[in-house]
Amino acid sequence: MTTPPVAGGRPHPRVALDAMGGDHAPAATVAGALLVRDDDLEVVLVGDAERLRSQLEEAGAAGAFEIVHAGEVVGMDEDPALALRGKRDASIRVAAALVADGKADALLSAGSTGATLAAGLLAIGRLDGVRRPAVAAVLPTRGGPTVLLDAGASPDVQPEALVAYAVMGAAFAGVRGVGAPRIGLLNVGGEPGKGNALAKAAYSALEAVEGFIGNVEPDAVLAGEVDVVVTDGFTGNVFLKTLEAAGAAAEEGTGPGAAVLLGCARPVLVAHGAADAREVAAALRTAAGVVAAGLTERIAEQLVATGTREEASDDG
Amino acid sequence: MTTPPVAGGRPHPRVALDAMGGDHAPAATVAGALLVRDDDLEVVLVGDAERLRSQLEEAGAAGAFEIVHAGEVVGMDEDPALALRGKRDASIRVAAALVADGKADALLSAGSTGATLAAGLLAIGRLDGVRRPAVAAVLPTRGGPTVLLDAGASPDVQPEALVAYAVMGAAFAGVRGVGAPRIGLLNVGGEPGKGNALAKAAYSALEAVEGFIGNVEPDAVLAGEVDVVVTDGFTGNVFLKTLEAAGAAAEEGTGPGAAVLLGCARPVLVAHGAADAREVAAALRTAAGVVAAGLTERIAEQLVATGTREEASDDG
Repeated sequence: MTTPPVAGGRPHPRVALDAMGGDHAPAATVAGALLVRDDDLEVVLVGDAERLRSQLEEAGAAGAFEIVHAGEVVGMDEDPALALRGKRDASIRVAAALVADGKADALLSAGSTGATLAAGLLAIGRLDGVRRPAVAAVLPTRGGPTVLLDAGASPDVQPEALVAYAVMGAAFAGVRGVGAPRIGLLNVGGEPGKGNALAKAAYSALEAVEGFIGNVEPDAVLAGEVDVVVTDGFTGNVFLKTLEAAGAAAEEGTGPGAAVLLGCARPVLVAHGAADAREVAAALRTAAGVVAAGLTERIAEQLVATGTREEASDDG
Repeated sequence: MTTPPVAGGRPHPRVALDAMGGDHAPAATVAGALLVRDDDLEVVLVGDAERLRSQLEEAGAAGAFEIVHAGEVVGMDEDPALALRGKRDASIRVAAALVADGKADALLSAGSTGATLAAGLLAIGRLDGVRRPAVAAVLPTRGGPTVLLDAGASPDVQPEALVAYAVMGAAFAGVRGVGAPRIGLLNVGGEPGKGNALAKAAYSALEAVEGFIGNVEPDAVLAGEVDVVVTDGFTGNVFLKTLEAAGAAAEEGTGPGAAVLLGCARPVLVAHGAADAREVAAALRTAAGVVAAGLTERIAEQLVATGTREEASDDG
C-alpha cells in the first residue's frame, strides 16, 4: 500500500478535534488529546478557547496544543441542518473549515453524527460520484473484523448508493489489509429475491461489483462470512444498535474508537458521544491512521476505476 | 377476558397441522402432535396420508389423529405465490382450506412463512381493515415479554400499516394479560423526527393511537420499556434475526414455539422451520391457546372500535 505524503508538508497527520463535541466534552476531549501527545500526530483543539486553556492548565499542560476558538456548540438533539445554519461559529463547523482549508488533515468529533456529517458535506464536500456518505463501522465477528456500511449516516437511499458503499467498503477493507474483500448485502434471507424493494433492487445492481457474494443474514455476518456488509443507513443503524444492545458488538472504527464517514472529500470521523479520554485518544489515532493510509485517495481511485456514480435522482 | 365458544360446537380447539412443513417433517410434526394427545386440543394431520399413517404406526399410535391427505409440498425456498398457484394439492393449501371451511379452528405450519401467509390470505382471508398481515413474535426482555410486529411477513408497507400493527399488537398483548399496553416504534433514536421516511410518517400516524409512547431504540426494547414494538417486516426481521444471532432472544410466540400472523380472519401460526417435536408440541398448544382466548375476534373488535383501516394505496 502506498502511503501518500501528508498534505501541507507536515511531518505527521494533523487532526482537527471538535473539543466541544460529546457527552463529556471538553474534559474528555482534552484529556484524550493529552494521551496522544507523544504519538506521531498533531491535534488542533477547536472550541471555547478559555475553557480549553483552563482544561489544559488544570492538567499542567498549558500550551500543549494549538487552540482554535469557536464560540458555539451544536447539541446532540438539535436538528443538524438547522443548527449549523443558525450557528456559524459552532465548533464542528470551525473544525470542518480547518480541514477544508488544508490547515488540518482530518476532522474528528464525538458530538452529533448528523451535525458532523452535515458540517463535513458543507465545508469539505463529497468525493466525485458519491451523493450520500456512509458511516463505516467495524464489527468484531468470529471470522475477524467486518466493515458495516452504512451504519447510520443516510437513512433513505436509492439502490445505487449501496453500490458506492460496496466500492468504498472494499477500499476501506483493502487499506485494513484484506486482500480480496468479500462483500455481502444485509438481508432477511440468503437466496436472491429476498428482502424489501430496496434490497431486491440493490442485489441486482451489486451483481456487477467484484467481490459481491450475495445476501447475508445477521448470523452470517457474525460468523465472519464477509469482509464488507452493505445496507441502508436505517437498517444498518438498527443492526448495529441491536448488536450493541445484545452485547455482541462494540462499534470499532478503523482502529477502535471512531467510525469513518466514507464518501467525504477529506477524512471525517465520528467517535461515540459517550467517549471517555481513552476512547478519544483511540479515535485520534484512528483518524491519523486513516490519513497516513491514504484512505480517501484510495476510495477516490476506486470510484473512478469502477465507474461508480450514484444517480442524482433525489434531493439530498 | 371472555372466552368465546370454539366454532363448530367442538369441545376443544382443533388445529390443522401442515404435517409436511418444516426441516424435520413429517417425523417432527407427527411426534409433536403425539406429545399433546392428552391436552385440551385436537390435531388434524395434513399431508401424505401414507407417510403419516406409517409414522403413526411406527410410534405405536395408529389412528391417533384424523389425517387429511395432500399430495404436494411447498419447499422452503420456493416462491410462495408461484408454488401455491402450481400446487393445488400442497399440504399448506389443504390445511388452510380446512380452517376456511370451519373444519378446523387454526392453521399451523413449520414450513415456509411466505407460503403459510399466502395460503392463509388465499383461503382464509384478512380481517376487515387489514391489508398486510404481520408476524407477531414475542421477545423475552428484562421487563418481561414484548410483542414485536411485523417480525417478517410484509417487507414493504405504507405508514398506515404500522397503525394497524399497533392496534393488533395491543390486542395481542391484552389477550396475554397486559392491562394498558405501552406501544413503541422501533427506531434509531428516541426523539421525534428520527429515522427513515417510513418511520417519520409512521410516527405521525401513531400519535393518535392509545398507548403509543414514541420511538424506541433496540436497547429500550431489550430493557422492556414497551409491551408492543412495531416496525416494517424487513426491519423487524433483521432485528429479530440479529437478536437470535447474538444469542439475545429466542422467538417465542404466544406461548413458546410459534409466531402468530395477525390480521388473518382465522388464527394462522408459523413455527420455526427447524422445529423439533417438543417445539411443534409447544406451537400446537399456542395455536389452541390463541383460539381459546378469542384473539382473532378481539383484534377484529379493536380494529372496528378504533376505526383502523389501512389505505388501499398499493397493489398487495
